Amino acid sequence: MIVVMKMGATPAMVERMTRRIEDLGLKAHVIIGTERTVIAAVGDKRDGEQETLESCDEVDKVVPILAPYKVASRETRAEPTCVTALDLKIGGGHIGVIAGPCSVESEEQLLTSARAVKAAGATGLRGGAFKPRTSPYAFQGLKEDGLKLLAAARDETGLAVVTEIMTPGHIDLLVKYADVLQIGARNMQNYHLLQAVGDAGKPVVLKRGPSATMDEFLLAAEYILDRGNSQVVLCERGVRTFETHTRFTLPLASVPYLQQRTHLPVLIDPSHGTGIASLVPPMAAAAVAVGCDGLMVEVHPEPSKALSDGAQSLTPNVFAEMMETCRTVASSLGKHLG
Amino acid sequence: MIVVMKMGATPAMVERMTRRIEDLGLKAHVIIGTERTVIAAVGDKRDGEQETLESCDEVDKVVPILAPYKVASRETRAEPTCVTALDLKIGGGHIGVIAGPCSVESEEQLLTSARAVKAAGATGLRGGAFKPRTSPYAFQGLKEDGLKLLAAARDETGLAVVTEIMTPGHIDLLVKYADVLQIGARNMQNYHLLQAVGDAGKPVVLKRGPSATMDEFLLAAEYILDRGNSQVVLCERGVRTFETHTRFTLPLASVPYLQQRTHLPVLIDPSHGTGIASLVPPMAAAAVAVGCDGLMVEVHPEPSKALSDGAQSLTPNVFAEMMETCRTVASSLGKHLG
Amino acid sequence: MIVVMKMGATPAMVERMTRRIEDLGLKAHVIIGTERTVIAAVGDKRDGEQETLESCDEVDKVVPILAPYKVASRETRAEPTCVTALDLKIGGGHIGVIAGPCSVESEEQLLTSARAVKAAGATGLRGGAFKPRTSPYAFQGLKEDGLKLLAAARDETGLAVVTEIMTPGHIDLLVKYADVLQIGARNMQNYHLLQAVGDAGKPVVLKRGPSATMDEFLLAAEYILDRGNSQVVLCERGVRTFETHTRFTLPLASVPYLQQRTHLPVLIDPSHGTGIASLVPPMAAAAVAVGCDGLMVEVHPEPSKALSDGAQSLTPNVFAEMMETCRTVASSLGKHLG
Amino acid sequence: MIVVMKMGATPAMVERMTRRIEDLGLKAHVIIGTERTVIAAVGDKRDGEQETLESCDEVDKVVPILAPYKVASRETRAEPTCVTALDLKIGGGHIGVIAGPCSVESEEQLLTSARAVKAAGATGLRGGAFKPRTSPYAFQGLKEDGLKLLAAARDETGLAVVTEIMTPGHIDLLVKYADVLQIGARNMQNYHLLQAVGDAGKPVVLKRGPSATMDEFLLAAEYILDRGNSQVVLCERGVRTFETHTRFTLPLASVPYLQQRTHLPVLIDPSHGTGIASLVPPMAAAAVAVGCDGLMVEVHPEPSKALSDGAQSLTPNVFAEMMETCRTVASSLGKHLG
Repeated sequence: MIVVMKMGATPAMVERMTRRIEDLGLKAHVIIGTERTVIAAVGDKRDGEQETLESCDEVDKVVPILAPYKVASRETRAEPTCVTALDLKIGGGHIGVIAGPCSVESEEQLLTSARAVKAAGATGLRGGAFKPRTSPYAFQGLKEDGLKLLAAARDETGLAVVTEIMTPGHIDLLVKYADVLQIGARNMQNYHLLQAVGDAGKPVVLKRGPSATMDEFLLAAEYILDRGNSQVVLCERGVRTFETHTRFTLPLASVPYLQQRTHLPVLIDPSHGTGIASLVPPMAAAAVAVGCDGLMVEVHPEPSKALSDGAQSLTPNVFAEMMETCRTVASSLGKHLG
Repeated sequence: MIVVMKMGATPAMVERMTRRIEDLGLKAHVIIGTERTVIAAVGDKRDGEQETLESCDEVDKVVPILAPYKVASRETRAEPTCVTALDLKIGGGHIGVIAGPCSVESEEQLLTSARAVKAAGATGLRGGAFKPRTSPYAFQGLKEDGLKLLAAARDETGLAVVTEIMTPGHIDLLVKYADVLQIGARNMQNYHLLQAVGDAGKPVVLKRGPSATMDEFLLAAEYILDRGNSQVVLCERGVRTFETHTRFTLPLASVPYLQQRTHLPVLIDPSHGTGIASLVPPMAAAAVAVGCDGLMVEVHPEPSKALSDGAQSLTPNVFAEMMETCRTVASSLGKHLG
Repeated sequence: MIVVMKMGATPAMVERMTRRIEDLGLKAHVIIGTERTVIAAVGDKRDGEQETLESCDEVDKVVPILAPYKVASRETRAEPTCVTALDLKIGGGHIGVIAGPCSVESEEQLLTSARAVKAAGATGLRGGAFKPRTSPYAFQGLKEDGLKLLAAARDETGLAVVTEIMTPGHIDLLVKYADVLQIGARNMQNYHLLQAVGDAGKPVVLKRGPSATMDEFLLAAEYILDRGNSQVVLCERGVRTFETHTRFTLPLASVPYLQQRTHLPVLIDPSHGTGIASLVPPMAAAAVAVGCDGLMVEVHPEPSKALSDGAQSLTPNVFAEMMETCRTVASSLGKHLG
Repeated sequence: MIVVMKMGATPAMVERMTRRIEDLGLKAHVIIGTERTVIAAVGDKRDGEQETLESCDEVDKVVPILAPYKVASRETRAEPTCVTALDLKIGGGHIGVIAGPCSVESEEQLLTSARAVKAAGATGLRGGAFKPRTSPYAFQGLKEDGLKLLAAARDETGLAVVTEIMTPGHIDLLVKYADVLQIGARNMQNYHLLQAVGDAGKPVVLKRGPSATMDEFLLAAEYILDRGNSQVVLCERGVRTFETHTRFTLPLASVPYLQQRTHLPVLIDPSHGTGIASLVPPMAAAAVAVGCDGLMVEVHPEPSKALSDGAQSLTPNVFAEMMETCRTVASSLGKHLG
């Protein structure tokens, strides 16, 4: 890190700060500039303690140099990670597609969706059994009954089941039915939950929190990796900005940015990322063109009757067309979808 | 809610939408404008289901009219709620002050802090025993040992202990030691945790998530209230914006805005809201002037050696001066601090 | 618009508001709900005056229904506008590419760039002669000398010259040399400048301000259209959000969103939109996949020596590869680049 | 600045970068860390050219150390600047209050406003004659007739006239009538306008752009100062964030943050900063408590009939009460309002 001293810091202050840095087990290099003195502190230390140096009166700011994450880093592992569950493959050259309804509502709704997305080329089936809802008065999911329906749909179609886990207490139940555990955006920094899925050993889709920085996102993945679970997919699903014409703002530049820094695969969720069904297919095509490792898309047999997220769900027909376009774009770039 | 039809919607489409609205148990009023038809749907319905009408092809947008929260609303309860724990009183004319270190680090560190903030006029003691940290490599708190130190500090000083709960599994442990349970900003939408503290019956400080809207914030409170726990304090601690010169952007207008809509008291946390110790005292004074019901401030005997949040912690002396100023501003407005 | 009355508004208040609405030349429909009364005000009025109704004590909020823009709207003109200058065609099925250096620095730098981008398939040449710079101490452009170099480059290559106008006083000078006038993001709401380019009659590239909403963006275009100039290209170049790993956050969903509402073509600037050269080619490909009508890309013979925006400029070789990829994606979707 | 090399940068790359830094006239210090090499470049250089080093392949990032502004800095001038026009004094211990209608609409409206705000203790009169409006169809101001009314109001009341200048071409006209020129938020980076008011020599109120960083804000002031005009007031009027319950988010922490860095006075505009009349008085009191050097408030004799900004305008009575409260808070802190 670089410690920038305030203007007018005396040699005694610089000397004192040098000792503080050395007390942290780091080596200090003092550089005297035209207006300010800076001290470069050299050593591998990522526990955040050093940032408290900013509280010293004589310090203007502290600039970290090392990335705060480690296991997630390309520098730790150069080749891309491929996350696998049944036929679903995400990363390492595979563009996996997970599709299905927001919530599991009934056997018929789920099976219709599952058959349709399978026919169109998806290899993963999404569907919420436990639903995190902004309002306590909204539909909260079918719970274990929903999980059973998901498992039955997998048995029929062979699609890998991807479903959200909301709290550590549910881990045994979820592990019984799901192939991939999803951490929702609201829980990206629910650290006990991250540790629980880390310990469970199932593949994990980790959604970016709507105001999480890239470092925070990668550090959340690091919590899972740190428990020995390396099957982690990063899912960009849009960030909260001043824009209100879309539900969230979906920054596709996250894909190449993350791929430069981490070996973990990057999934795009254009459904939550826009919140508007008519914007999902063009953004899915763009996600493929930008180089994503997978897509997660909400599909419902009758969106206008969905109990949640109807406005952003595709009908099976529109989804099939979307897949056709995405496949075309993928193969024009020498890649393979699904 | 108001359903705005697309331009060119035919009478048949309007008729069909009218029936859909009536199927939801609402009454429909059709208004034919110069360019568009809108349908006003009348009735008390807050479960979100109706928003899926936006997915209908013939609909341009759906505008909700009713606030989505109910029990938190001033319309449900006109008089302000006062949240109380030992001598700590927040709301209903009382400006309560909770102060102390970010993390409990040692007996000496905690007791020194507790005595100092008590002497300066605080009636609540903050201190984290379980710490949500962005990095898995950072100090995670003393856990139950920290809780014991907090309880001991309460026994000596009489300060009410306010400490964060991170996961539902900790509820029994926390209830044993704490007087007030805090839900951190990262967990504002951790619904199982909200329900757990709702059931526990202890007063709750609910921190606003860094990108939560006001409706989302009040709906999170509604989850707690809905379990029969009415002792909820709303804590504004800053939102994430493009500004980087402060850790977060602290919008004090939240105080009067919330007070117009809810009976729950509003606490300001200028420490997290700015992230910079020198900005805390002026923002605390401003919070009192804007009409807040309480303050939550980080104080550490030696900020530059803090294991977390050193850059935003006040020394005991600076905190005492801050309290003096806040008391002066409060009494100039006919209010009482502490 | 919909006027939502406060809870408890008396019949007399509703009556008074009804008259206020009628005084504005609108028809009022009163709808009495379970908790609130709303008044639908029918009529074509877009001058903003009605929003002052929100200042009435008895009014909770005012919800506009009509889009505030008119001439830019698809409802006014259904078929897409194609903006043309020499061989540059943007919109109406043509994906035009404008490329070149951020600033014109020298004859050699400009001609090298122009020849390279022409060879790779661009039909427009960008280059700033008058540079808006955040700091008064930064390079401000070669001014008229720069314009002369641009004109010379056009004479040699046939590329249409696209250059920024910063102030109405420069209009005569700019019109003399440029084929397309660019309004920079900082000037999106510089209304005298918008009117000046509206009067000048040259094609205009209007960049979105970094915190402009879609309505504000389209209303800025409306200022130009309102002077009778219909050759306006909307350029999305990224918005300012909490994200700092990229210079701006580039929301590609703007493309289909705008295309649904306006007949004006939409150009993407991945250079400013990311600020990082290595992210430009994937985002350009994604922009083509999402359906953009054109690209604007910074290219410099030697980015590390550029006097401005070096970090986001492509070398001629990387630009040529990017064009190859974009052409492939375009033709996979049945479109033609350049 | 600090140049952080990529991991794996070879000694030859470090050597080449060292020479590039020296070519810029800076001194280079190489520091070899455990994972990366950084090069500290020492010297006074603020022209932004060095940032193009980020475009070099072997560079990970460039961290600037020096503030980019100079004349605005406290390091250049330690004592606070007081900006003065007639009886209006802002800064250096004076809290000046500028009040009046958003737009000048008629002689009666303006004079009624002017007398009322004068009686309540304001010393500056605001009122727009040239109005920047988002829509070309909205009221654009009375233009020179409005300026004449403002001058007449000054002649009667002694209030200093503060009015907005929209374009350099108006400078002679504005200088004839106004005491203080205001640069609106939309024009904060309209550099030709900044230079024009810099040359005009009148005091300037410079409004922060809704997504301007602090450095950009201070650099905009620097454009004015750089022309020899030191009478510049910085006006914080709220930033654009994801929050929609208020028109903008008003970050009062800007006041102490700016006062630590610049000698220029800081004015708060709670009218635009909230957009809601009922939030203006508490935010004005908070602004005084946080230490602002002045207030700018919209007052209209009949807000519900205002041609612009009615929703955020105070009636004369509410303004008078607000002033009473602000005076009380100011004197409790040993300061004087007006």
